[in-house]
Amino acid sequence: MRQQNLARVLHTLAAEGSLSRAAVATRIGLTRAAVSTLVEELLRGGLLVEEGPGRSGSVGRPGTQLRLTDRGPCGFGAEVGVDRLAVCAADLRGEIRVRVEREVRNQQREPAAVLAELRALAGRARAEAVRVGLRPAGLAVAVPGLVTRAGSTVLRAPNLGWRDVELAGLLPTDLGPVTVHNEASLGGLAELWSRTEPAADSFVYVSAQIGIGASIVVDGHLLAGAHGFGGELGHVPVRPEGPVCGCGGRGCLETYAGEEAVLRAAGIEPGPGVRLGALTARCEADEATALRAVRRAGTALGIALSGAVNLLDPRQVVIGGTLSRLAPWLLPPLRRELARRTTVAAGGRPTPLPVTASPLGPDGPLRGAAGLAVRTALDQPATLLAPALPH
Amino acid sequence: MRQQNLARVLHTLAAEGSLSRAAVATRIGLTRAAVSTLVEELLRGGLLVEEGPGRSGSVGRPGTQLRLTDRGPCGFGAEVGVDRLAVCAADLRGEIRVRVEREVRNQQREPAAVLAELRALAGRARAEAVRVGLRPAGLAVAVPGLVTRAGSTVLRAPNLGWRDVELAGLLPTDLGPVTVHNEASLGGLAELWSRTEPAADSFVYVSAQIGIGASIVVDGHLLAGAHGFGGELGHVPVRPEGPVCGCGGRGCLETYAGEEAVLRAAGIEPGPGVRLGALTARCEADEATALRAVRRAGTALGIALSGAVNLLDPRQVVIGGTLSRLAPWLLPPLRRELARRTTVAAGGRPTPLPVTASPLGPDGPLRGAAGLAVRTALDQPATLLAPALPH
Repeated sequence: MRQQNLARVLHTLAAEGSLSRAAVATRIGLTRAAVSTLVEELLRGGLLVEEGPGRSGSVGRPGTQLRLTDRGPCGFGAEVGVDRLAVCAADLRGEIRVRVEREVRNQQREPAAVLAELRALAGRARAEAVRVGLRPAGLAVAVPGLVTRAGSTVLRAPNLGWRDVELAGLLPTDLGPVTVHNEASLGGLAELWSRTEPAADSFVYVSAQIGIGASIVVDGHLLAGAHGFGGELGHVPVRPEGPVCGCGGRGCLETYAGEEAVLRAAGIEPGPGVRLGALTARCEADEATALRAVRRAGTALGIALSGAVNLLDPRQVVIGGTLSRLAPWLLPPLRRELARRTTVAAGGRPTPLPVTASPLGPDGPLRGAAGLAVRTALDQPATLLAPALPH
Repeated sequence: MRQQNLARVLHTLAAEGSLSRAAVATRIGLTRAAVSTLVEELLRGGLLVEEGPGRSGSVGRPGTQLRLTDRGPCGFGAEVGVDRLAVCAADLRGEIRVRVEREVRNQQREPAAVLAELRALAGRARAEAVRVGLRPAGLAVAVPGLVTRAGSTVLRAPNLGWRDVELAGLLPTDLGPVTVHNEASLGGLAELWSRTEPAADSFVYVSAQIGIGASIVVDGHLLAGAHGFGGELGHVPVRPEGPVCGCGGRGCLETYAGEEAVLRAAGIEPGPGVRLGALTARCEADEATALRAVRRAGTALGIALSGAVNLLDPRQVVIGGTLSRLAPWLLPPLRRELARRTTVAAGGRPTPLPVTASPLGPDGPLRGAAGLAVRTALDQPATLLAPALPH
């Protein structure tokens, strides 16, 4: 019970930034006295700091504001991407304080080799975090594939070429408890947590890169699916007799709007080091082939998302991932298809369904992973209040 | 608080049929004494009956079982279908006790004329209900279209030809409080309430007839969508350059698998009195054109549902509505498409996604409407306990 109340104080401050003791008490519905006791324990444990007019020597004065510390425990996020590895650390306030990244073509590489490289990167991130006064309190890893609920196995990651990869022994062990998740799910959570308007908390977030995933957020909650495998937008059929897809189906969205499909349609052979930058430059230069390729991808995204919008009736569609950089050319045809194909679902809407590029760009999943590690740590104040391990 | 506890006793008995006082107390977490007081009030009000060994003169003896009455308040369900009107009444146990129905082609008819006919039918159902000892406690109406959250307006019902129809003054007034809902939503609720296995409570229910709607049930809750317009499976694009649909889109599922599209593909001109029976007979007689038409519809349903399954990862797909009568010919191609196109989402599944015909057949929406009226009434025990209106 006490642990739960400590956690509620921490989460309230994580959500609101800084508050007085009285404001915390109002938010969580406990007495001022009860909150003061909880706050003292968190201050002693170094998880909170005081600031504002009453700061020094006048604990509890009305002007004193409480905040989560920017030192002490931190959550790590890692991303195993098709063409990059990245690790970051966020302090309890959710600020990204450390970030290391490596561009590397992971397709068809041995999982053990990829994850050894991730461990090395995590070691660098850990050292950097310690240097700025942080200590590891947990790690969440984003993977572009289907992960078992327990997070112990990547069942399929078609764009990495992984199948039934057991993760035991391959993940970093010195960053605290580790969990593994689908990258689009974490991207959707990052998008959700970056919002301030609760009205917008029913949306479809698209993580569009080599693979295309989605998260469906309904009333502020991620819809994971019965087996945790929801959000596979990339394998929604766009043209049922279309090109064969890596998943075994035909005409899946990824065969039209996946990063490699778009590059090829623009006449750019994808390969090591060949990235969307080249395509963006050609679009900016108004090259017809490039523009046509991106429009075709936007149209395919719009067709697949029309199905999703008709089924789910969200308040908003948000495009994240590397393809979000192509938003100026991608979104107009996407919006056009949605407008044509969701008229029934649009029945009572005063305005068209908003479709925007995520302000987090391709960093959604990595930020979501760090955010999840922080939130998981805040759920366990007892662990955070224990004496720090020596490092 | 007392009203809430009375409602909990009623809902517990609605879910479990018959229970002793002690079993009710365990289920709802109140003391035996508290439950006895609540039960006495409900017995006096005629909402419960006692049965079993200790029935007469030994109130509260361990063997005495409580049940909801099969007399007294009842919930009415009504369906405004494209080719039928129906009204039924369910007692508090959820048993359908009265049912009247009329086949009538409602397409392009004036809403006022259709609803006048519905009121006449409701009058007949009411008289029949009173005759068997029931009294009206509420009405829910199923409409094949988009209904505002408040239930005051049908925004669009393309297969009826309705647009922005204000319902005030057009619905029955002598059956208790009236609510109006999308027919597929009510069908999904009927399917949910007919289940005993909670593990199966994440499913997509398809209401397939002239229009094709769906309800998405996640962990036992209907996913209504931000504006209440979710589940528009009929307008999921199957072939983006396909036939023009009544909704303004192209190649929507309804243009391939709606009842009229299937009849036409089978060489049967749909019209007044022409129904699926003719098509079923031809399928049973192995007629090639009929079989091809139904297979084509099953394939289209499979393509659209592949998108839904990839996005939602349900435990099951259930086909209801008139088309469910074609299940022997419809389901094999539907299952084939799902198997081909949802391999990624099937990653961790030991067996293929179960696809079955709803045991409720085309009656899901009507039964769901009556069930909702009963459940809404059980939420308001004070109203049910009030002296009955004279009739």
